[in-house]
Amino acid sequence: MSTPILFLVTRPVLSSPPAEDAGFVQARADAPQLNVMDLGVTRGDGFFETISVANGHPQALEPHLARFSHSASLMDMPEPNRTVWRQAVLAAIAAHERESGSSPELFAKIIMTRGVEGTGMATGWVYADEVEDFGAARRDGIRVVRLDRGYRHDVAQTSPWLLQGAKTLSYAVNRAAVREAARRGADDVIFVSSDGYALEGPTSNVIARFGNRIVTPQTDQGILAGTTQASVFEFFKERGFETAYERVAADLLDEADALWLVSSVRQAAPLRSLDGREFPVNAALAGQLNAFLLARVK
Amino acid sequence: MSTPILFLVTRPVLSSPPAEDAGFVQARADAPQLNVMDLGVTRGDGFFETISVANGHPQALEPHLARFSHSASLMDMPEPNRTVWRQAVLAAIAAHERESGSSPELFAKIIMTRGVEGTGMATGWVYADEVEDFGAARRDGIRVVRLDRGYRHDVAQTSPWLLQGAKTLSYAVNRAAVREAARRGADDVIFVSSDGYALEGPTSNVIARFGNRIVTPQTDQGILAGTTQASVFEFFKERGFETAYERVAADLLDEADALWLVSSVRQAAPLRSLDGREFPVNAALAGQLNAFLLARVK
Repeated sequence: MSTPILFLVTRPVLSSPPAEDAGFVQARADAPQLNVMDLGVTRGDGFFETISVANGHPQALEPHLARFSHSASLMDMPEPNRTVWRQAVLAAIAAHERESGSSPELFAKIIMTRGVEGTGMATGWVYADEVEDFGAARRDGIRVVRLDRGYRHDVAQTSPWLLQGAKTLSYAVNRAAVREAARRGADDVIFVSSDGYALEGPTSNVIARFGNRIVTPQTDQGILAGTTQASVFEFFKERGFETAYERVAADLLDEADALWLVSSVRQAAPLRSLDGREFPVNAALAGQLNAFLLARVK
Repeated sequence: MSTPILFLVTRPVLSSPPAEDAGFVQARADAPQLNVMDLGVTRGDGFFETISVANGHPQALEPHLARFSHSASLMDMPEPNRTVWRQAVLAAIAAHERESGSSPELFAKIIMTRGVEGTGMATGWVYADEVEDFGAARRDGIRVVRLDRGYRHDVAQTSPWLLQGAKTLSYAVNRAAVREAARRGADDVIFVSSDGYALEGPTSNVIARFGNRIVTPQTDQGILAGTTQASVFEFFKERGFETAYERVAADLLDEADALWLVSSVRQAAPLRSLDGREFPVNAALAGQLNAFLLARVK
């Protein structure tokens, strides 16, 4: 990865005191910028969003900012100042273009934490960088295994302190799941609830095609409502498919005609195998879907 | 909280390249020391231990270092260099005494992360600081509520990627649980498995007295083996109690003669209520137990 463009967000929340600057200021990404007592690192106590930037346009920026605010609310943190965050994202993209030239695909990541312990002041930053080459995943597909997430499908309702549905910095389990997938010879994961429902990937949503129907697991199951998933539904609706949010039994995935994991940055990755069973990848469709996703200008 | 004494650990793992320094170097805790791309913050991808320091002696240092290594192993991270970490802890304690004078109670926290994304090099640091005043919790007790942890008691065996039993930096859920406790008018939490077993607190172990028996939940249930809990068992054994690790149905806690949450730093906090039902606190016993714990010199 190249050195990213970094902006520290000096007024991350609506209640931040006014300042002379725009609410964000550029800083060196290769120099230390965080306090070791920041609760973002000592407790994974913060949240983030990762935004695709295609041909200079941040994609689904408003839905990302809305989800960022939703995470804040689920974590009892103050409301982010979306105006400042929006401008900081745009500034990071512009600075990247200015310093590294234009690039067809970037990503911008926004992070807000509960701040340095004892201060009660949130910490925030944005960085923009080039995207690694996902050509093979988008075209040839990925190998996926199903792994238990350990929670029932309904814990977001019964036990909100488990923070299912918040995009927190406490992602160690998501990363451990991907390492387990690698041990099983796979690239990625579909999490399954302890009561047998297909949920989502560690950093993606699941899309299944059954004949003329395109289905994604219902988001009331502690699943992050996907910004890319919404665009994938648009793509299929335009082509005459029916789309639906449903509870999907994990076993039912074996009967799908096609499966994808979709997310910002990697966009749509068709599954070429699920738990070792091969799935045929429709390369033409994968190409059209990813071209559609990359062409989004908002 | 005062400004802590900070040492950056430059050789955190056995495979770290040799260096001119001792493997750690003092740094300013009030200045930024961490890269924003460190996986410790972007993914909560690291682990930690908190060690009590009573009258200059780090307590249970070797069990803490052993558990630190165990966390590394559960997270597929390289083996920490315990010699370096041990010396760094001692150096931080000595520097705190030198710079702030001797203090009856400090804590030292050790943190190791997977490092800056893409570098493959772990990041590590140690800090030592004064302990807040836990006198009231130790003497008068705390109010506790039981909350669902969402996992079955056996997920550490069936689903190791859930990292139950590793002391990871991904602690957002533990903090959210304590906020939920506060909403319910309580101070702390006992987590319950989805199949009804009492587990542990967000940062403590549970001890229950039933007559002459002292019981703590069996550690094969994704529970961190407590260094303080081990000392509490010693205390009670010396006084003729029987001690046991058992599976404890969450409902059984209502029938306990006494309950404690025990941990490094806060030591032993007797419960004065559980889900609103009052428990009598034996102040004399609480005093003796905490005096015993604070007198440990290793």
